[in-house]
Amino acid sequence: MDALLITHAANWYYLTGFTGEAGTLIAGRGRATLISDGRFTTQAGEEAASVRYLEQKGSLVESTGRFLKEKSFRRVGFDSSQVSVAQFRSLRKAAGARTEWIPAPGLVESLRIRKEPGELAVMRRAAILAGDVLSGALKLLKPGVKENEIAAEIEYQMRMCGASGPAFETIVAFGERSALPHARPTAKRLRKNELVVLDLGVILAHYCSDITRTVYVGRAPTRVKQWYKAVLEAQGAAIAEVRAGASTGDVDSAARQVLAGWKLDQYFTHSTGHGLGLEVHEDPRVARGQTTRLESGYVVTIEPGVYMAGVGGIRIEDDVAVHPDKTEVLTRIPRDLIEL
Amino acid sequence: MDALLITHAANWYYLTGFTGEAGTLIAGRGRATLISDGRFTTQAGEEAASVRYLEQKGSLVESTGRFLKEKSFRRVGFDSSQVSVAQFRSLRKAAGARTEWIPAPGLVESLRIRKEPGELAVMRRAAILAGDVLSGALKLLKPGVKENEIAAEIEYQMRMCGASGPAFETIVAFGERSALPHARPTAKRLRKNELVVLDLGVILAHYCSDITRTVYVGRAPTRVKQWYKAVLEAQGAAIAEVRAGASTGDVDSAARQVLAGWKLDQYFTHSTGHGLGLEVHEDPRVARGQTTRLESGYVVTIEPGVYMAGVGGIRIEDDVAVHPDKTEVLTRIPRDLIEL
Repeated sequence: MDALLITHAANWYYLTGFTGEAGTLIAGRGRATLISDGRFTTQAGEEAASVRYLEQKGSLVESTGRFLKEKSFRRVGFDSSQVSVAQFRSLRKAAGARTEWIPAPGLVESLRIRKEPGELAVMRRAAILAGDVLSGALKLLKPGVKENEIAAEIEYQMRMCGASGPAFETIVAFGERSALPHARPTAKRLRKNELVVLDLGVILAHYCSDITRTVYVGRAPTRVKQWYKAVLEAQGAAIAEVRAGASTGDVDSAARQVLAGWKLDQYFTHSTGHGLGLEVHEDPRVARGQTTRLESGYVVTIEPGVYMAGVGGIRIEDDVAVHPDKTEVLTRIPRDLIEL
Repeated sequence: MDALLITHAANWYYLTGFTGEAGTLIAGRGRATLISDGRFTTQAGEEAASVRYLEQKGSLVESTGRFLKEKSFRRVGFDSSQVSVAQFRSLRKAAGARTEWIPAPGLVESLRIRKEPGELAVMRRAAILAGDVLSGALKLLKPGVKENEIAAEIEYQMRMCGASGPAFETIVAFGERSALPHARPTAKRLRKNELVVLDLGVILAHYCSDITRTVYVGRAPTRVKQWYKAVLEAQGAAIAEVRAGASTGDVDSAARQVLAGWKLDQYFTHSTGHGLGLEVHEDPRVARGQTTRLESGYVVTIEPGVYMAGVGGIRIEDDVAVHPDKTEVLTRIPRDLIEL
């Protein structure tokens, strides 16, 4: 390749420090060039002083295509998973017929997957903060409170503790709604004898955390205690499988096998986890059939769950970092079933 | 076309009510079909009972492609601005060689652009709520507070007032940082004699609002007062241009011409506005050279600004709806310069 187009915000932040939301970074011969629009010109100068900056004229893809043509970059790599069919058409037109396009998805992601010690230090703080915020929120779970009030308190506390915001839409799900793995907070009020799922994460200094705990408001019935025990055991089995050299598919099946032993695997309707870093979902996937091998510096979530439509759901999630000789659980709060 | 693929969350929500974050909606002969993954199966049944539901096997694009093949849908429209080059490759492979692919960007967006009375009623409430939250935040602007504390308070108040969250990352920018149109809140503390830009919006019942006010902490110097007057006049001129039949390019140039009269047009580094609805940025663009004609039911932001690097910035933004015979400013709080 003569040049590689970097078209995804987390990737250009990783390489240059530029936090703008729109742009293209072109890595080629000599200094890299960042193209963005007038909203980000001052910011780019401050944040990404090491790269050349070009303010776009016309659309971003047109400016990018013209730049490639002017520089005579002929063999150009691009991330085919980030560039839309329409953008690609405009890019090709602007760059001219002599450009050869090379789909090169995931190149920067393959660097980002392995966290440096400095990144891990930030992620440790992000994970601890998420746990602290979750622990604080448990104190607010009294019958009568609304899901969206708890979500508001959670996101407020994150920011007051230095987070730039939530890593994703905070999940606060009471009762039956906890059976929806991606429930959005509503005005539903908490009642006695309900499951509560809290799933939240912070962005701290650009890095994400992601934690889930499930509690019971009242004295949990036996079947809820059993489901909880099964999920906790499944999570423990998956965490025990996390180490350098293990495949993420094996980590997933460790959780799934435990749930199968409890005849609950059919209620575990999603993957066991995902990579975590600058984005809340990044490589590697921790899912059925995945063959990616974990390496030192990888950080993944481990989050099995069971979901009983019309009844409720249980999910337990922690963030786990792989070291050469050990596994580190970054999130630090207890996992045993709490009855409030 | 035999079928149209709807691959963008706001579009499938608009057509079916499904709020899941992943899926494909296939509109074809007979009932439409929604394909999504196990996380959203229960939710899809509750929210989108009018469509057929198919839980994906393997990846979403593979399941979508196979479905098209089984149904013998031959001429298939897709949104080329939403489907990545890599997704398109997988889709084509899974659907088989006999499928003819028809780029059809923006079809659902062309329905969404015209808001029904029921949608406008929600957007009015969203706009008023954003104004109320902004007014409340002004009371917190005392020397010593941090940008990120104010942002936390703003987003907390939104949610306590019934919003499902912010429509975008709330902008709170003090002093020099207000010269960055897309500044992110930091730990910077407010000092006396600084400009403050607050730019925020809520999501209320799925619809977005977007409002900006700029205030001065202390007695504004003459040049700041003049800049403010220029921006306010530019905004007024653009709002006056908003009516059924006007082109959005003309609305943009109304603002730009006023600023040129003040010799400030070079400091207005972004577009005058954008459409607003289920998404915070949607059609139409209100920008230089745009030829889209406004029609009854369109809602746009009008938000000119001037940005002096190293000094500060001023932006004033309101949300404006087009009616057959009048223009309605949905955001309701005063626009005059406030000195705190």
